[in-house]
Amino acid sequence: MARTTDFSTWLAKFAADFDKQLNVVLGDELSHDSRLHQAVKYALLGKGKRIRPALCCLVASNGAPNEAVMRTAMAIEAVHTYSLVHDDLPAMDDDCLRRGRATVHVQFDEATAILCGDALLTYAFELLATVDVDAEQRIELVRVLSQSAGHNGMVLGQHLDIDATSQSISFEELQNIHLLKTTELIASAIEMGSVLAGQNTDKWRKFGEKIGMLFQVVDDILDVTADSEQLGKTAGKDDAAQKPTAVSVLGLDEAREFAAQLCATAENGLQQLGVESTNPLNQLPSFLLDRSF
Amino acid sequence: MARTTDFSTWLAKFAADFDKQLNVVLGDELSHDSRLHQAVKYALLGKGKRIRPALCCLVASNGAPNEAVMRTAMAIEAVHTYSLVHDDLPAMDDDCLRRGRATVHVQFDEATAILCGDALLTYAFELLATVDVDAEQRIELVRVLSQSAGHNGMVLGQHLDIDATSQSISFEELQNIHLLKTTELIASAIEMGSVLAGQNTDKWRKFGEKIGMLFQVVDDILDVTADSEQLGKTAGKDDAAQKPTAVSVLGLDEAREFAAQLCATAENGLQQLGVESTNPLNQLPSFLLDRSF
Repeated sequence: MARTTDFSTWLAKFAADFDKQLNVVLGDELSHDSRLHQAVKYALLGKGKRIRPALCCLVASNGAPNEAVMRTAMAIEAVHTYSLVHDDLPAMDDDCLRRGRATVHVQFDEATAILCGDALLTYAFELLATVDVDAEQRIELVRVLSQSAGHNGMVLGQHLDIDATSQSISFEELQNIHLLKTTELIASAIEMGSVLAGQNTDKWRKFGEKIGMLFQVVDDILDVTADSEQLGKTAGKDDAAQKPTAVSVLGLDEAREFAAQLCATAENGLQQLGVESTNPLNQLPSFLLDRSF
Repeated sequence: MARTTDFSTWLAKFAADFDKQLNVVLGDELSHDSRLHQAVKYALLGKGKRIRPALCCLVASNGAPNEAVMRTAMAIEAVHTYSLVHDDLPAMDDDCLRRGRATVHVQFDEATAILCGDALLTYAFELLATVDVDAEQRIELVRVLSQSAGHNGMVLGQHLDIDATSQSISFEELQNIHLLKTTELIASAIEMGSVLAGQNTDKWRKFGEKIGMLFQVVDDILDVTADSEQLGKTAGKDDAAQKPTAVSVLGLDEAREFAAQLCATAENGLQQLGVESTNPLNQLPSFLLDRSF
């Protein structure tokens, strides 16, 4: 429990640093006096947990970010944020609450929300194209992010998730949807960190997949056990939409057991990766298991 | 007139080659049995003019494309196509006809159209990340495309265009919107060709901006002088939506004169760039001026 508190403290500090630097970069690079730029900043500067940028930073530089790591982390957060803005649209999940406040299409309008998502996605690649590392690393970051976020990754996962609503599907089919929709981007955040660190990317990606799956299963548990204020988004939404989740397929107790197994596997993975004992990453699996938001 | 016919013949042959190779690549890389992949293929394989890919190819390799040029050209077409899919959505221009058939949200559904656009945009960067040229060139392609397509380029142009509907704006304001919405991507297709050719990209971009502006002015003229069958999209749409266009701001005669001036400037630019006399690019300005579709 003490370890979880330590990680929470580290993450809160990281998120504050990240938000501060993001604010500076957006002030420089999105300075047009238009509702589009306002919407992009509104979406990106909402109070996110910043888990994905944190993962990149923990792997890239032992949790102590330099400018190149932060810029890469911002690109990952831009892709995550665009996916939320588009998923919340009336034609998709039709949600009005995100990160504790009105979704972009509610705060602005639907056309602006579509274009805001488009701008965020494009901006992610602009950020990566101008990261201060060598060209080989930059293009590898582009490859990893584009492959995990696109038609064979996150976007396909969101499509299959919508198609699966109200349908009875197996646990294996559910896992595949989660793997695409959530795990891919989380695993990529970790893999991109390892690209920046010049480490073995395959091993890190495998670890990232366990972390992504753990993250998603706990999300499903929180959807039925937490309230909207805790989550900063609409609770009970998956249940109301009759979406298949780890809880609806496995039941609450077995979903919790599955999460605990994923946590143990991830901790084992960290030992094999030889992560330094001072790296807050060691506390990540138990933090993700025990989180309540 | 003979020259225009020659260029039409070259472009038709290029478009046929491009479509054939695109079909092969999409068959390999988008093979999931899902409506999402079907929608991406439906959108990309519609009968487009393929002007942007052609421009890239003309500059990169004198009009004779190799595999790297074709892959780069496909990335540019993917970005153009995503912008059409999203612009046609009910919350944006709300159009049902594109490239001579139903728009993606009409043929599939709105959620699939949003995700189809997202997948196409992401795919563009995946294509560029895996072009067979050196890493410096690949990342430069990513930089040019992301900067021209994003929050300070095409997406901003589309946003300002929507905001300007029904408003009285000056010719300078209109030119700025066009510069962002249409010219940026056309100029980038040309600049990306020059990146592949290892030539002076600044000079090519300036030429590209004239070509892009010429393309847009002729589009505005055709919107009032051609019918939907010729265009493969809804004619008279800008006029009906009270959108400011070169014709509504300048009048038809003066818009035609402005187009002729842009054509002359572009032809002069080609001479200064020292383009080989055999390159079909020499015929491009007059082709764009005289086109009827």
